Amino acid sequence: MATTSKKPPSASCETVAAAGENRLVRLLTRGLPQTARTLCGPGDDCAVLRGPGRGIGTLFKTDALVAGIHFTMETDAARVGWKALCRNISDIAAMGGSPQEALVTLALPPELHVRWVLRLYAGMRRAAVRFGCGIAGGETTSVPAGAPVMISVAMLGTVKTASLVLRSGGRTGDLICVTGRLGGSIGGRHLDFIPRLEEARWLVQHVKPTAMMDLSDGLAKDLPRLADASQTGYRIDPAALPCHRGCSAASAIGDGEDYELLCTLPPAKWRRVRESWRTAFPRVPLTVIGELLPDTNDRTPLTGGWEHFRLPQ
Amino acid sequence: MATTSKKPPSASCETVAAAGENRLVRLLTRGLPQTARTLCGPGDDCAVLRGPGRGIGTLFKTDALVAGIHFTMETDAARVGWKALCRNISDIAAMGGSPQEALVTLALPPELHVRWVLRLYAGMRRAAVRFGCGIAGGETTSVPAGAPVMISVAMLGTVKTASLVLRSGGRTGDLICVTGRLGGSIGGRHLDFIPRLEEARWLVQHVKPTAMMDLSDGLAKDLPRLADASQTGYRIDPAALPCHRGCSAASAIGDGEDYELLCTLPPAKWRRVRESWRTAFPRVPLTVIGELLPDTNDRTPLTGGWEHFRLPQ
Repeated sequence: MATTSKKPPSASCETVAAAGENRLVRLLTRGLPQTARTLCGPGDDCAVLRGPGRGIGTLFKTDALVAGIHFTMETDAARVGWKALCRNISDIAAMGGSPQEALVTLALPPELHVRWVLRLYAGMRRAAVRFGCGIAGGETTSVPAGAPVMISVAMLGTVKTASLVLRSGGRTGDLICVTGRLGGSIGGRHLDFIPRLEEARWLVQHVKPTAMMDLSDGLAKDLPRLADASQTGYRIDPAALPCHRGCSAASAIGDGEDYELLCTLPPAKWRRVRESWRTAFPRVPLTVIGELLPDTNDRTPLTGGWEHFRLPQ
Repeated sequence: MATTSKKPPSASCETVAAAGENRLVRLLTRGLPQTARTLCGPGDDCAVLRGPGRGIGTLFKTDALVAGIHFTMETDAARVGWKALCRNISDIAAMGGSPQEALVTLALPPELHVRWVLRLYAGMRRAAVRFGCGIAGGETTSVPAGAPVMISVAMLGTVKTASLVLRSGGRTGDLICVTGRLGGSIGGRHLDFIPRLEEARWLVQHVKPTAMMDLSDGLAKDLPRLADASQTGYRIDPAALPCHRGCSAASAIGDGEDYELLCTLPPAKWRRVRESWRTAFPRVPLTVIGELLPDTNDRTPLTGGWEHFRLPQ
């Protein structure tokens, strides 16, 4: 099987840890069958489908949480439920859309207490009501005793096609902006974050970013994905990064799970928007942290970010 | 928390194994928030949403496979991939609909070989092409080393609302029918089955069953669900069951994973359809196995079926 990666093309003995998420996803998604109504298949925060009406698109997204990876069983399950739903809502926001219905798949070991699952659902219900999303059903399955709990959420959303923002629209010279502050999410924010639904709606209405995505794996992993999709390089000014109190720039770049918006704007649009943003969201900064560059190889080195497939140390 | 179950209402120390799937799902899905366009929330093979056009509904479904539960790692991964997609297609068929797009969530241990995942996708691609379904993307995540592989598929489908068949439409006196033959699926058919998409389309066009679902957990588990939704009892004639060669009636009732259609028809419709069915599907029997009864407690005892949450023996 041919590949555009610099790594060897043979996948015969390679483990997923050795391949890494980016290469694995490239191998899996190449040439997948697509329906005629698919406007945007694999490679963005959500898939985008044409319809249901003229000028309307459907967003379709799945995301999963695994015990021991994304949360521990000592965590209040209501916070895990909140996180499970809000990660999907964050992805739908980052496309310029609004959440509609979720389906919840639970894979549970037989020894798990029902009260844990009820708390999980309490957190999901709270997030659903807060952000106007339905929970239209789902599926429960068992895993072998001792195996980790897994929660997979599928979500539908709606977007005006005129408001749709992809990762691929960034242009040379665009300013790179982030909402909020970055770093140190592992201290607890990754379980309680508010998806930037309102902020994303405001942005698409008032300025429409050229590209947008949410920061889930960290700037060091996510910005290269946006730049790859937009076929650009980038320069980041570490001193400009809006860091959470007590966090270094390295932490803001590499920690991940910020669930802030990363977007790109032409400089003229930025000048128009910076004051009105402050009025609309006085407590959430919108910060220019760098710019897109013409040469795809010209990129400020960024260290860290979340790599899904790591061999145990 | 109040409950209609005969079991104690407190879930404080109960395990999911002790509660069982039916009680767990009842506890979780009661009063979930629903959007205005949701025609059918939790409790059927798929959720049903209004739109995209007049007289058109959207079907939304998720289903998951777990290593050690639904397949073993010794199985050719292409067959696992086929099964993962076809289980969802079978549910969409059972509502009278057609599959559209799937999203695939993979939870993979770091030591897994990439070639296994490529084979898995080969099976999914083959099923997608065969049944006219797109694979619009998905998500990969890691699980801790040694944890089981999990594959969760979310699928969208379309259905004419006039063709929509729910579990809840069965009426006293309706005949209970199944397509194909039952039992012994564990010998291999559970990995290679052909979802009854054509047969379901034919049924909704030619006769429109009053109720329909697919047989995934076995007649002993699934028929009570159809009868509960339709608020009826049932009588089953074990001698009438269409068993696979070498299978007993007990096996046809309790083995599960048949992925045949279970449907109910008024006797007059049955007489009209039996001959034309044979012409349309000469190799797939459609068999009357019993009838719906007025008293919900009047039910032929059926033993077996797949219970998801069992404590290890």
